[in-house]
Amino acid sequence: MTVEQIHAAAERLNGHARITPILTSPFLDDLAGRRVHVKAEPLQRAGSFKFRGAWSALTALPKGTRGVLAYSSGNHAQGVAMAAERLDMPAVIVMPLDAPALKIANTRALGAEVVLYDRARGENREEIGAALARERGLALVRPYDDPEVIAGQGTVGLELARQLPGDVSGDVLVCCGGGGLSAGIALALEAERPALRVRTVEPEGFDDMARSLSSGRIERNAAVGGSVCDAILTPAPGDLTFPILKDRAGPGLSVSDDEAMHAVALAFLRLKLVCEPGGAVALAAALFRRDLIEGDAVTVIASGGNVDPRTFSRALERLA
Amino acid sequence: MTVEQIHAAAERLNGHARITPILTSPFLDDLAGRRVHVKAEPLQRAGSFKFRGAWSALTALPKGTRGVLAYSSGNHAQGVAMAAERLDMPAVIVMPLDAPALKIANTRALGAEVVLYDRARGENREEIGAALARERGLALVRPYDDPEVIAGQGTVGLELARQLPGDVSGDVLVCCGGGGLSAGIALALEAERPALRVRTVEPEGFDDMARSLSSGRIERNAAVGGSVCDAILTPAPGDLTFPILKDRAGPGLSVSDDEAMHAVALAFLRLKLVCEPGGAVALAAALFRRDLIEGDAVTVIASGGNVDPRTFSRALERLA
Repeated sequence: MTVEQIHAAAERLNGHARITPILTSPFLDDLAGRRVHVKAEPLQRAGSFKFRGAWSALTALPKGTRGVLAYSSGNHAQGVAMAAERLDMPAVIVMPLDAPALKIANTRALGAEVVLYDRARGENREEIGAALARERGLALVRPYDDPEVIAGQGTVGLELARQLPGDVSGDVLVCCGGGGLSAGIALALEAERPALRVRTVEPEGFDDMARSLSSGRIERNAAVGGSVCDAILTPAPGDLTFPILKDRAGPGLSVSDDEAMHAVALAFLRLKLVCEPGGAVALAAALFRRDLIEGDAVTVIASGGNVDPRTFSRALERLA
Repeated sequence: MTVEQIHAAAERLNGHARITPILTSPFLDDLAGRRVHVKAEPLQRAGSFKFRGAWSALTALPKGTRGVLAYSSGNHAQGVAMAAERLDMPAVIVMPLDAPALKIANTRALGAEVVLYDRARGENREEIGAALARERGLALVRPYDDPEVIAGQGTVGLELARQLPGDVSGDVLVCCGGGGLSAGIALALEAERPALRVRTVEPEGFDDMARSLSSGRIERNAAVGGSVCDAILTPAPGDLTFPILKDRAGPGLSVSDDEAMHAVALAFLRLKLVCEPGGAVALAAALFRRDLIEGDAVTVIASGGNVDPRTFSRALERLA
């Protein structure tokens, strides 16, 4: 992949995706021990960066495509559903039964047909999705291992290159599941602002990308669930995303669920921004892994805000 | 006052205040029965639009001013404190004992000296403030009845005129305490986008501006407290703000505390934006007073997000 694909996606997204703001707070700077710039993707349409990749992929489909199919625990589903609705294209979303109720309800309310599967009983979303796509003639939109999806997520990197103050260099911390967002941003920054370097952030126990970056080959997670960071629990780095990150990303970081929840509370208090736990792991790393970060500034991608109200209230209890 | 003062304030704010985004959601459009555009001032520095007026006022002071004094239940305090800190100017803030603990703590953390008074015991903040300002040679920065403050708040209107899609006209709903934000926006829109009209929104029982607009002269509130919308509980319209609004604003609206809390919950769910109850009354009016609004679009100013975590969690219970 090349940065030209990201520029082409940016053109298609222009006027459709939101250019999200960079937020700052002197209180967060103090906690992090350096200047913190937070790119606020919860303010993106459908509440996460996923709308970018979805719009990019859907607008790159051949004319005459009858509809799209996606499988996702939530944010990709909502991104694809909203993009499809705005493009007047039918969408079928395959979601796990145990996905947050809010994400399932939102996906339906955006006009998509939701097909539920039971991951605890070993049902395989790839197989269910492939069969449905074949039967109905739908185009599959993968959550991260698709060049047009990666190109769409990379538009976050193009915006960062323009928006950040000129003297900001160093680490860009990115919440990482399959690596689509991280890979897209890494490609964009390499071309547009090489003084910035992507570092992936994952939940402890789901640090497949960090271990893969360290060993140089794709490593898998033992666990399949059990973290509050539902948005970024993927089994292993993608076949497309890992080779991109292998040569471009710094060492991966990981944080505990408790630290992610604490970051959710601090984003509420100091930025007035709603983050979900999986969308706050990068902020958590900036605040609670400061010894593993270098330089006088750190950039953080807050990647999504689709959080159940109860989980959010539980996070806020930390502020009492 | 003229729009030139607002343009001058905008120049001084350039690079210091944030240009806040306009947020939208198809879910809110459905509830409101028309397109809703929300100007997200909780994302402004110090968590509310008040930073604009504070920066405008402080940068208009004569050279050699030894420091500033403000009295405020919270958002103006934080706005003045943050502006003063960034301008390296001493600040003294007179706050009521019963202001939200978070707002008092934040004001102190921003380097201001906080002087508390007891409004229940009839202590008068104007007297306390005037005495302190005299003793120490500080410049008083009024929360709304000051031309430079109104000019700073008016920059919200200049941004609206640029940011809103060209086909948006009709009502601009503004959370209203003393009327500084409403007056500034009304002046800006009259000059830059006259198809938009300001309408003030207040908590029920504190609708002094609505009654004043209706009678044509300044009316006062009977109550002095007891609403969850602490940010916008003022005794009466300002002597500067009312004459501006009298000729330019449409009929005022009011909403219940319960409706304000519901709007807080919906801003969380649909916009991923943290609003305080007083900062959400305009959104509440868009959603729950739809019969009193005309046209196919409505613009809402979400004015602030400095809310205690417990109050916020209480608002979210509505989503269960």
